[in-house]
Amino acid sequence: MTPVLVTGGSGFVGRHALTLLADRGLDVHVVGRGDAPPWLPPAVRWHAADLLDPRRTDELLDSVRPARLLHFAWYATPPDYWTSPDNVAWVEASLHLLRRFAALGGERAVLAGTCAEYDLAGGSCTEEVTPLRPATLYGACKHALQAVTNAAADQLGISAAWGRIFFLYGPSEHPTRLVASVIRAVLAGKPALCSHGRQVRDFLHAADVAAAFVHLLESAVEGPVNIASGLPVTIGTVATRIGELVGRPELVLLGARDSPEDEPPVIRADVRRLQAEVGWRPSRSLDAGLTETIEWWRRRA
Amino acid sequence: MTPVLVTGGSGFVGRHALTLLADRGLDVHVVGRGDAPPWLPPAVRWHAADLLDPRRTDELLDSVRPARLLHFAWYATPPDYWTSPDNVAWVEASLHLLRRFAALGGERAVLAGTCAEYDLAGGSCTEEVTPLRPATLYGACKHALQAVTNAAADQLGISAAWGRIFFLYGPSEHPTRLVASVIRAVLAGKPALCSHGRQVRDFLHAADVAAAFVHLLESAVEGPVNIASGLPVTIGTVATRIGELVGRPELVLLGARDSPEDEPPVIRADVRRLQAEVGWRPSRSLDAGLTETIEWWRRRA
Repeated sequence: MTPVLVTGGSGFVGRHALTLLADRGLDVHVVGRGDAPPWLPPAVRWHAADLLDPRRTDELLDSVRPARLLHFAWYATPPDYWTSPDNVAWVEASLHLLRRFAALGGERAVLAGTCAEYDLAGGSCTEEVTPLRPATLYGACKHALQAVTNAAADQLGISAAWGRIFFLYGPSEHPTRLVASVIRAVLAGKPALCSHGRQVRDFLHAADVAAAFVHLLESAVEGPVNIASGLPVTIGTVATRIGELVGRPELVLLGARDSPEDEPPVIRADVRRLQAEVGWRPSRSLDAGLTETIEWWRRRA
Repeated sequence: MTPVLVTGGSGFVGRHALTLLADRGLDVHVVGRGDAPPWLPPAVRWHAADLLDPRRTDELLDSVRPARLLHFAWYATPPDYWTSPDNVAWVEASLHLLRRFAALGGERAVLAGTCAEYDLAGGSCTEEVTPLRPATLYGACKHALQAVTNAAADQLGISAAWGRIFFLYGPSEHPTRLVASVIRAVLAGKPALCSHGRQVRDFLHAADVAAAFVHLLESAVEGPVNIASGLPVTIGTVATRIGELVGRPELVLLGARDSPEDEPPVIRADVRRLQAEVGWRPSRSLDAGLTETIEWWRRRA
């Protein structure tokens, strides 16, 4: 069986990739800090290691010898992740991981990037066309890792792709993020205080994001690929729809909060590469994904 | 005395910075692999360490506790440095160095970049205007390090600048590089086989490059700064002038070799930032610098 290593495999996105990979007949190894999570699929092997320690990374890769690598791990706690100096440590750790992976005969790597790498002033994001001009430390660090990965793949003797994640939602999301916070408010019967809501974004369920990454890993596509639905909606639509699906639309209060002045009005993902070259489209409608996410939070209410 | 650490301080450029820093009353520490070079100025402290080993970097910084950092070290053997996977290791090592420097209270860092970070198709290179579109692994890795350094400086609590080096010459240059190879040929009475020579470039003597970096380190200027003369010349002029200065102009044969098809016809440096903000101009004319370099090679002939 082909060994695949998933980093960040207990995270919001990564956890959804594990069963998909096992179902494809791969020998799935996951690395995370601390003990294995209780929900870990039985076919998956857990490795406790801190990838910020290069010696532990070396030990891990020496033991697993992955042929494929799906790299989600990063510092991701909102809102600190935009500015945390840990972003720099993660560039360093990711380069170390990638070099060791390649040195031990690794063949195919897919790493997680972000729409925050793009110059978002133009609204639309097309791979290798839209300029890369990250406005945040997080975006700059992901951009830097992408630039090195893309340029170094040939010399490292690996095939590499880079999935740029846009806007996410789904079960187990951090409770302060948009979809989670609106759901929690309306489920509790409290007003969900939202901004004007006219911001256009591309939302994708975390399980669909993971499915797209697994597809990308199994493809031969190289370089950056936007991971998104291709169906932009306003934040107001998402919030309002949550209220409607819960049966409490009156609790969603658009315009009740200021939004940051420098917030881009439109962030659209060009998904032609994802659909035509990788051959992947999301399986869930926004309504289906929101309903599933509401049910997950309801069970925890 | 303020401790300053110079990496790559025994290299082609870095060696020229040491006396300049000591003359400014700084406590100069140099790190390199192996033993101290015999020419090391007595006021300078040598530290043998391989910066590609993060534990050695930590030990070094714990011991020196530099307030300032001048980072020249990189894999630089021509022509391999354009494509070597060691470029990736040097991004990793440089980020580790920078993080440790900041964590231990370092205040001001200047790192060495390259004109190869720019999109060279347009001919002219202006900081924060000309798009960054490196065509090589070397350029991509330097670009990535710059992007992270620039974005992270505030969060790391340091002031950081980035000197983009253009074209170099001077004593102890690698013998296969343009100026060194032409000088060696004509000094040996052999034909110097050159390309058509119409390529426009900006050449700066390595000692002037080092002087500009020391000026930049002592300034408060942040972000990228082109390190160049601002006086572009053709490669043909440089080669011909070497022949004339040696007294053997007939040995310089322009058009005797093909040049790479993808070679940019013009690479000009905008030096307004260097001259107006950093307040530095080169002290040597091209003729003076070439004469000095010819004398250096003559003593070794």
